[in-house]
Amino acid sequence: MAISVETFFLNPDAQGTLQAQIQQVVAEGILSGRFHRGEKLPSSRKLANHLGVSRITVTLAYTELLANDYLTSRGRSGYFVSDNAPVPPVYAPSHRTPDRVDWPRAFCRTFTGGDTPHKPGDWHSYRFPFIYGQADPTLFDHANWRLCALRALGQKDFTSLTGDYYDQDDPLLVEFIARHTLPRRGIAARPEEILITMGAQNALWLTAQVLLDSTRKAAVEDPCYHALRDILRQSGCQLAPLRVDADGLPPQELPSDTDVIFTTPSHQSPTTATMPLARRRALLDRARELDALIVEDDYEFELAFLAAPSPSLKSLDSDGRVIYVGSFSKSLCPGLRLGYIVGSEPFIRQARALRASVLRHPPGHLQRTAAYFLSLGHFDAQIRRMSKALHERRQVIEKAVSDHGLTIAGRGVYGGSSLWMQAPEETDTSDCMRVLAKEGVLIEAGAPFFAGPDRPTHFYRLGYSSISSARIGEGIGKISRHFANQRLRI
Amino acid sequence: MAISVETFFLNPDAQGTLQAQIQQVVAEGILSGRFHRGEKLPSSRKLANHLGVSRITVTLAYTELLANDYLTSRGRSGYFVSDNAPVPPVYAPSHRTPDRVDWPRAFCRTFTGGDTPHKPGDWHSYRFPFIYGQADPTLFDHANWRLCALRALGQKDFTSLTGDYYDQDDPLLVEFIARHTLPRRGIAARPEEILITMGAQNALWLTAQVLLDSTRKAAVEDPCYHALRDILRQSGCQLAPLRVDADGLPPQELPSDTDVIFTTPSHQSPTTATMPLARRRALLDRARELDALIVEDDYEFELAFLAAPSPSLKSLDSDGRVIYVGSFSKSLCPGLRLGYIVGSEPFIRQARALRASVLRHPPGHLQRTAAYFLSLGHFDAQIRRMSKALHERRQVIEKAVSDHGLTIAGRGVYGGSSLWMQAPEETDTSDCMRVLAKEGVLIEAGAPFFAGPDRPTHFYRLGYSSISSARIGEGIGKISRHFANQRLRI
Repeated sequence: MAISVETFFLNPDAQGTLQAQIQQVVAEGILSGRFHRGEKLPSSRKLANHLGVSRITVTLAYTELLANDYLTSRGRSGYFVSDNAPVPPVYAPSHRTPDRVDWPRAFCRTFTGGDTPHKPGDWHSYRFPFIYGQADPTLFDHANWRLCALRALGQKDFTSLTGDYYDQDDPLLVEFIARHTLPRRGIAARPEEILITMGAQNALWLTAQVLLDSTRKAAVEDPCYHALRDILRQSGCQLAPLRVDADGLPPQELPSDTDVIFTTPSHQSPTTATMPLARRRALLDRARELDALIVEDDYEFELAFLAAPSPSLKSLDSDGRVIYVGSFSKSLCPGLRLGYIVGSEPFIRQARALRASVLRHPPGHLQRTAAYFLSLGHFDAQIRRMSKALHERRQVIEKAVSDHGLTIAGRGVYGGSSLWMQAPEETDTSDCMRVLAKEGVLIEAGAPFFAGPDRPTHFYRLGYSSISSARIGEGIGKISRHFANQRLRI
Repeated sequence: MAISVETFFLNPDAQGTLQAQIQQVVAEGILSGRFHRGEKLPSSRKLANHLGVSRITVTLAYTELLANDYLTSRGRSGYFVSDNAPVPPVYAPSHRTPDRVDWPRAFCRTFTGGDTPHKPGDWHSYRFPFIYGQADPTLFDHANWRLCALRALGQKDFTSLTGDYYDQDDPLLVEFIARHTLPRRGIAARPEEILITMGAQNALWLTAQVLLDSTRKAAVEDPCYHALRDILRQSGCQLAPLRVDADGLPPQELPSDTDVIFTTPSHQSPTTATMPLARRRALLDRARELDALIVEDDYEFELAFLAAPSPSLKSLDSDGRVIYVGSFSKSLCPGLRLGYIVGSEPFIRQARALRASVLRHPPGHLQRTAAYFLSLGHFDAQIRRMSKALHERRQVIEKAVSDHGLTIAGRGVYGGSSLWMQAPEETDTSDCMRVLAKEGVLIEAGAPFFAGPDRPTHFYRLGYSSISSARIGEGIGKISRHFANQRLRI
């Protein structure tokens, strides 16, 4: 790659001769790692023109750099960064100006340090990744997604690719969700009641911002999706964590001043409990009594390979009280960042205006690609394929867990992609997680899902969406041995 | 398209016989527009299995619907939605349950009704679209973008397509920005000092949320990008609008309690003024004096076809005081939603954590596609092509404006894609905008760019990035005649 002449600037405040300044700019480019070995420098004529200096000044600077072995000359082809040029240090480029800003004072709030744990980015290099919510490359219909993306890249769809939707969504995707996806959850919604979001994360965040501030109280399941608790904390609202039981959120425990209830009735996150119909009715009744709203996160409903999923809470809602959050992250892949909210029109209008302010709209090309993938039936086919694979893995993992005497604390009755597990009482699964990772086994510690200071530490989650059946047994064996060894040590 | 059996649910609260309920579900599907004419219904066997009712119940329901002409039967092929079936009303589906939520009370803040005007989504169907910031399909290198997207869809890049980056960005894109884009602005930054955002909108929003709340004061240019004022208002901060002059923001006017200064020194939005070097220095000095931070929105710097752009404010910043916002929306296209922030590491860390909470990360596929498009040189080629076209249009529009006696209030000295215009004092350009739109001419009224109650109403903006040279003259003629007619009427 030739180094572009536009990357050269003389600092108007610089000291020294022009020649020295040019030498410095080149040397800094090399030392900071911007200019790489073997790259061609602009010709002296070009650089002189660009900087408004005489050509001889540039030539002298280049000659000096040649002598210092920063550059080499290849006869008529010009000057190149020398193979012997100093190598930039990997982490700390030289000539860093020290920051003179008091950052902690400058921040009016901080966002780091929440409950959401950091998953290893290189999870796919682990041999036994019992990790949750990550795409299994072997289950994703890459070929058809590519074809749909290609079609969405066509001249015909130019507007959806490049257009500025302002606050709008792709009408094709919205229509498909309204006509095809939502009816499967018993929900009838008009396009005005649907908002496309950057995944469920974005949907929950928008909802929290519209409905919550320091004067409001949100009830959440305990344990719950840790990122949700971070989202709610950022809204400044009061938090009421309610310990879930085998049927999910207990409605009778809702504080009387609850404003918004966040729940995962289909498949409680992370315990996998499914809320029975009677309790769903009780929850709706209690919400009506409190005049509270309900946010239903219906993630993973598609992965129902053991039994048909029960209709959504939203389908039982005759008041407009339920705000429904759906996502394609688990069923397609998380990198797409596509989800949606279904709610009453006044609510969707506010969420849409906030979304426009935060990011305008999810990229049109992705929306159109997803619309094609859905409407051509590839999505359904992929769900069938995924369900089949997950069903098999579920049988294998349940057997392995039982063979090795591990304890299941919760398993989705209709399917899903994870088991909620319970280690011996005295165990801290965060420690186990670290030790097991060194043996190539990734599990997820349970503590970050819980609220408050006295978090149970002996739960953990085993995802089976990213590990092949063939490896499950060996992985479970390692976990079991780890707990056994630990017991000996205590 | 066959209607999927999964879209059928019996409402557990429904009254009446099972047969009647099934009839109702089908009829509602048709009346609500979910089931379309000619679509095939599930076989009676399939539907009976799915609902857990006897097959004869479904057959009786279908027969009844046949008699009512909701369905037709095509011998052995089954039942289809009849061509004579009732047509759903376009806007109001039947059986809407009334909302029982007091929405205004439920919202803890509202986001609708800001200063950002609504641009017509169908602007490309106008003959004279002097609209700003929209992609001109004829200037976008669609073919090479498609090739890059295809490459990014390949098996090799599977992770970037599907992966969950959590809070990370595409290293390829970040590296290119650090090595190639920023040096052109005189900026040296490490990857840790760069955050990819969903366009400049998202970059400004994240910055405002990290740095501002009700205890902080933000200084903004007046006039300024209206969406920025909406973003700042949502942060709850105190706003100090400073009237710009021909050199942009006047540093001496900054209130002594300013915490953050938002500025567009390269090309003031919307007046197009370029801040001279001396004033840039004065601004940095004043910021240091106040211990204030500066947010530099360096949009459109690439479109410099008249003169080389001056180095960015960030390149003169030795304190880490300047937060730099860049965007590919103007130079590539707005629908991509890709931009970036450059700032000190502690700041980028907070912005990254907030972004993770709001939306996790911009879609990997788009980041990788942009990385290819940039690194293969297509971006530079496109900029050259755009600059050539814009240069020509700029000459044409300046001549037309002068021929028709219209008044320019500001024009970018190095290029850009718009003129800031001034109508006769008494004019309300918002009215003109509406009248002219009926004649196929789209202009942008100036008032929404100004702060406060006494907004000047006689400015307007003419964008020339989406109108061909051939149409500029005629369009300007129409604007000129409109003002002339208006003067007669007054």
